[in-house]
Amino acid sequence: SRAKQNSVDDFVSNILAGNIAFLSRAITLVESTNEKHQQKANEILDHCLPHANNSVRIGITGVPGVGKSTFIESFGKHLTAQGKKVAVLAVDPSSSVNKGSILGDKTRMEELVTDKNAFIRPSPSGSSLGGVAQKTRESIILCEAAGFDTIIIETVGVGQSETVVHSMVDFFLLLKLAGAGDELQGIKRGIIEMADAIVINKADGDNQKNANIAKVEFNRALHLYPIKESTWQPKVLTASALQNLGIQKIDTMITDYISLTKENKYFDIKRNEQNKYWLLSTINQQLKNRFYQNPKVKNALAKEIKDLENGKTTPFNAAKRLLEL
Amino acid sequence: SRAKQNSVDDFVSNILAGNIAFLSRAITLVESTNEKHQQKANEILDHCLPHANNSVRIGITGVPGVGKSTFIESFGKHLTAQGKKVAVLAVDPSSSVNKGSILGDKTRMEELVTDKNAFIRPSPSGSSLGGVAQKTRESIILCEAAGFDTIIIETVGVGQSETVVHSMVDFFLLLKLAGAGDELQGIKRGIIEMADAIVINKADGDNQKNANIAKVEFNRALHLYPIKESTWQPKVLTASALQNLGIQKIDTMITDYISLTKENKYFDIKRNEQNKYWLLSTINQQLKNRFYQNPKVKNALAKEIKDLENGKTTPFNAAKRLLEL
Repeated sequence: SRAKQNSVDDFVSNILAGNIAFLSRAITLVESTNEKHQQKANEILDHCLPHANNSVRIGITGVPGVGKSTFIESFGKHLTAQGKKVAVLAVDPSSSVNKGSILGDKTRMEELVTDKNAFIRPSPSGSSLGGVAQKTRESIILCEAAGFDTIIIETVGVGQSETVVHSMVDFFLLLKLAGAGDELQGIKRGIIEMADAIVINKADGDNQKNANIAKVEFNRALHLYPIKESTWQPKVLTASALQNLGIQKIDTMITDYISLTKENKYFDIKRNEQNKYWLLSTINQQLKNRFYQNPKVKNALAKEIKDLENGKTTPFNAAKRLLEL
Repeated sequence: SRAKQNSVDDFVSNILAGNIAFLSRAITLVESTNEKHQQKANEILDHCLPHANNSVRIGITGVPGVGKSTFIESFGKHLTAQGKKVAVLAVDPSSSVNKGSILGDKTRMEELVTDKNAFIRPSPSGSSLGGVAQKTRESIILCEAAGFDTIIIETVGVGQSETVVHSMVDFFLLLKLAGAGDELQGIKRGIIEMADAIVINKADGDNQKNANIAKVEFNRALHLYPIKESTWQPKVLTASALQNLGIQKIDTMITDYISLTKENKYFDIKRNEQNKYWLLSTINQQLKNRFYQNPKVKNALAKEIKDLENGKTTPFNAAKRLLEL
């Protein structure tokens, strides 16, 4: 394939020049499980790194049906209209199961897809959320090197995916719908705690009133938490992505957040902490990969699990024997 | 110390004879970070294993203030009065921080403590929940070998500790208080899903009415979940541990559960699944221990973290260099 034929230098110079085709192919190398591809991807990443980091990274989560795609389309177009370059990535833990992905299997964000200042990439697939997330995190670096100044990471609230996305973004936005009261039911406490903003989407027409009620309720809930290290007081806004209502306010809010946290240094502190987290989780992932991909371990593990089922060994003994291989 | 002088055979024969002092000292070896102690602990465990497994393992969780200790004291005494031998262990993820433990730093369970058919052991301390839990799991084996037929594992609902305790018990019981309505607020969805029973404690005097209302509400919530693989329909009961009310019903319920699941084989299926889970998590824990306890890694890691803070390296590069040591 062409991706194999181009040299690392070709990739790097083209990515730095903002060439989307090369960016896309480099991400494919990042996502590949082929060892040669991974090695090439690492070399490309090494050279892109000095040019990365200059972006605002925004995480967006919300349950299916909340209108994430429509919101990202509306918000993304608002940003590109200002001359910004917007990359949309996804962390979808389910994509490893159904081989599809949040963005990949749907014809959504139709306008943003054709916007030359936007780049949309479906979730990588993978056997573990950690693996999926690492690939996304490396893709962020490539997008930044290609000149994207706004990186949006989309995730559906499944398992621990919000936590993982929270650990790679500067600003974390929770999309909600207004319903018939009881807004707080069914939201994991941890997600409210992570949110820098809650945006109540589809606040238009008859929904407007419910949206305003929900806004009051969420505001109250957010005020129950201690002040964040960022000193930022999380906000609740209403919006209608479909009708492009409230989008400017969200943009302004995020800009305010970035100004505040750059001024009080929290922006850098948080990115530092995220880097440490990713250092350790990359190591832990690699330790597991190395171990379980060892053919000797693969064979012995199957046997030990069989013995375990037949009561011939115990978890600790089996582990000990496997670790001695 | 005496613990060092006694041979593995001494330990094993005394544990099998039900000697609490030796049991206690063996658990101390299990919890030790000293490599020689760990080796001795492993040998003792190996010899105890054929005598383990014949118990009912019950997990009990609930927020602070719900009356876990009083409940375990009342329930434990009810069991020892029938001639049962009850071991109470704890998994307290916070014990690594405050160096105390749920059971250790409080003079609670005063009567059970002096009961010759009861054995109470505070949570091991440790730097990770996984590590703490592994030690508890090994202690279960020692307690079973010492003839304890009922193992109660207590945990406070912090972080992932309920999930970890759920993965080592046959029956999982959630303790709750009745308040002024809104009983379901503030309970993580996952915990309700894990519960085989919810017991509303302090159901006495003026609280009785609220407890009955809460019972209806929890029952409704439990019925929203699909039928469990065990075919057991989770129950909601009320109790007053302080006044010894409702304790017999809880005992009967757990006995019913064990009969049902032993008959339909789920009891063994679940223990098998738990063994597999513990095999993998023991391996993963050991892989990390080996790596991070390597002195070369310790030194280099500190340097890489410093470089990371100064923007001189990236998480992936740093991880790669450390993994090549």
